[in-house]
Amino acid sequence: MEFQAILKKKQQIIDEALDRYLPKEKALQNKVFDAMRYSVFAGGKRLRPILMMAACEFVNEEEEKILPFACGIEMIHTYSLIHDDLPAMDNDDYRRGKLTNHKVYGEGMAVLAGDGLLNYAYELMMQSILDHPHQCRNATAAMYEIAKAAGVYGMIGGQVVDLNSENTQVDSDTLDFIHNCKTGALFIAAIRAGAIFSGADPETLKSLTSYAENIGLGFQITDDILDIIGDEKKLGKKVGSDQENQKATYPSIHGLDYSVERVNRLFQQGLAAIEHYGEKAQFFTDMAHYLVKREY
Amino acid sequence: MEFQAILKKKQQIIDEALDRYLPKEKALQNKVFDAMRYSVFAGGKRLRPILMMAACEFVNEEEEKILPFACGIEMIHTYSLIHDDLPAMDNDDYRRGKLTNHKVYGEGMAVLAGDGLLNYAYELMMQSILDHPHQCRNATAAMYEIAKAAGVYGMIGGQVVDLNSENTQVDSDTLDFIHNCKTGALFIAAIRAGAIFSGADPETLKSLTSYAENIGLGFQITDDILDIIGDEKKLGKKVGSDQENQKATYPSIHGLDYSVERVNRLFQQGLAAIEHYGEKAQFFTDMAHYLVKREY
Repeated sequence: MEFQAILKKKQQIIDEALDRYLPKEKALQNKVFDAMRYSVFAGGKRLRPILMMAACEFVNEEEEKILPFACGIEMIHTYSLIHDDLPAMDNDDYRRGKLTNHKVYGEGMAVLAGDGLLNYAYELMMQSILDHPHQCRNATAAMYEIAKAAGVYGMIGGQVVDLNSENTQVDSDTLDFIHNCKTGALFIAAIRAGAIFSGADPETLKSLTSYAENIGLGFQITDDILDIIGDEKKLGKKVGSDQENQKATYPSIHGLDYSVERVNRLFQQGLAAIEHYGEKAQFFTDMAHYLVKREY
Repeated sequence: MEFQAILKKKQQIIDEALDRYLPKEKALQNKVFDAMRYSVFAGGKRLRPILMMAACEFVNEEEEKILPFACGIEMIHTYSLIHDDLPAMDNDDYRRGKLTNHKVYGEGMAVLAGDGLLNYAYELMMQSILDHPHQCRNATAAMYEIAKAAGVYGMIGGQVVDLNSENTQVDSDTLDFIHNCKTGALFIAAIRAGAIFSGADPETLKSLTSYAENIGLGFQITDDILDIIGDEKKLGKKVGSDQENQKATYPSIHGLDYSVERVNRLFQQGLAAIEHYGEKAQFFTDMAHYLVKREY
């Protein structure tokens, strides 16, 4: 199957699973169910769950088994967007062309919808672990990988430093910290959790981790670059917003040429980490192109 | 040992463990570490962890082993207070005589400190499960009990309905829902998680659950009653605030006399659920008095 078709099929599997897992019954608290669903189904590309499932398949485990964890990481990603958009944080009215959660449901409900998604992600994973007790150790280790990456040493930590850096001159180390924690950690955890869940040997885990670190960072710097030289039509959003908001980015600190060079190096290093797997790693190779060599 | 002395000793064990577990190192994100610690050490009575440890001891498991779970439930309780106090929710400037988290650290940081505590609670429990793989099943079941009670079918669900009910006439069913979910669920989960973690047999779990349900609700209605007839000096806070805020309470819907009767009945039912254990249940009997037959 062609890469784009595989991607679409995986997205569909994840969307169906998310719809199945997320609460929707009539209940006194169903406003929070609506608010949770609104943001989960507001057009995400499902990158993290797709990467997790791919790592799971790579280690020869059936991808169906990891669906609660794949959906869990997507819920955690979504909660972080809801809380990031709040007036007390980035104060964004729109995301992917749609009104942000608090603009539709109000600030209080948006805080609770975020809390609800974070907590529900863990409920879902725990329930799956209890349903399959024989794989308790690997599944718990995978869940822990996700939790660490989502927490104060990962995504939340990155957001804290981002929030603290508003209206200040950010240095290179601080920008690296924000990049690595705020987005990188959960990206890497998606792939590692997929491999750990499936009982990958240390060598395989090391290769996939190296791939994830390089492509994850390359993906983020590409985002920053496209905000400068991207085509608004292809991107489907306005460019130049980082400069407008005086946001520190990789190009603003290191220059555009160096950033493009860096992305190319990261891309090559990411592919090098998995090339000895040959055809078996085809999906990850295609994914690297899709994430880094893009114009959108 | 006298009850008050036991209580104090357990509080001390928990406070020391919380201090040991919570991040405090110098790091770029240490402002969130400070904010998390500020609210955790703002004078909580540690009721939930104490009940969890007591249930653990009751089933003859060493209480030391459950400390990561006991501290986890206290972090979850604390995160819920931080988010409840936010301007978009209850908008409180003070809690237990101290400034609320967002008044000290700002709204954005308070959201993140809450997120951080919720996520860190699970990290802590998962790490403990991975360190003791032989008890993976019971420990995961205990963690799931806590997660369910904290989520959209428990605490968050209760807060959603509470938020939705602002400035509306709340009926008896809705008030019961708020009581049961917002406070009751985590109270009951504390005791059940302690018993499940320790491998309690179904009969013991049933008795302790019945105790928890009755005393948990009795504890909450007592809170509502004391806000009407309590002694400000003994309570250490102003009375009459529920009426002032036009907050629906058990007495405002069912009347004071009926509420006092109801508490007495719950108290008796709670004790009846554990009386066949005799002296072994002494701590829970004392705790019932402490929680329900109080003037503070």
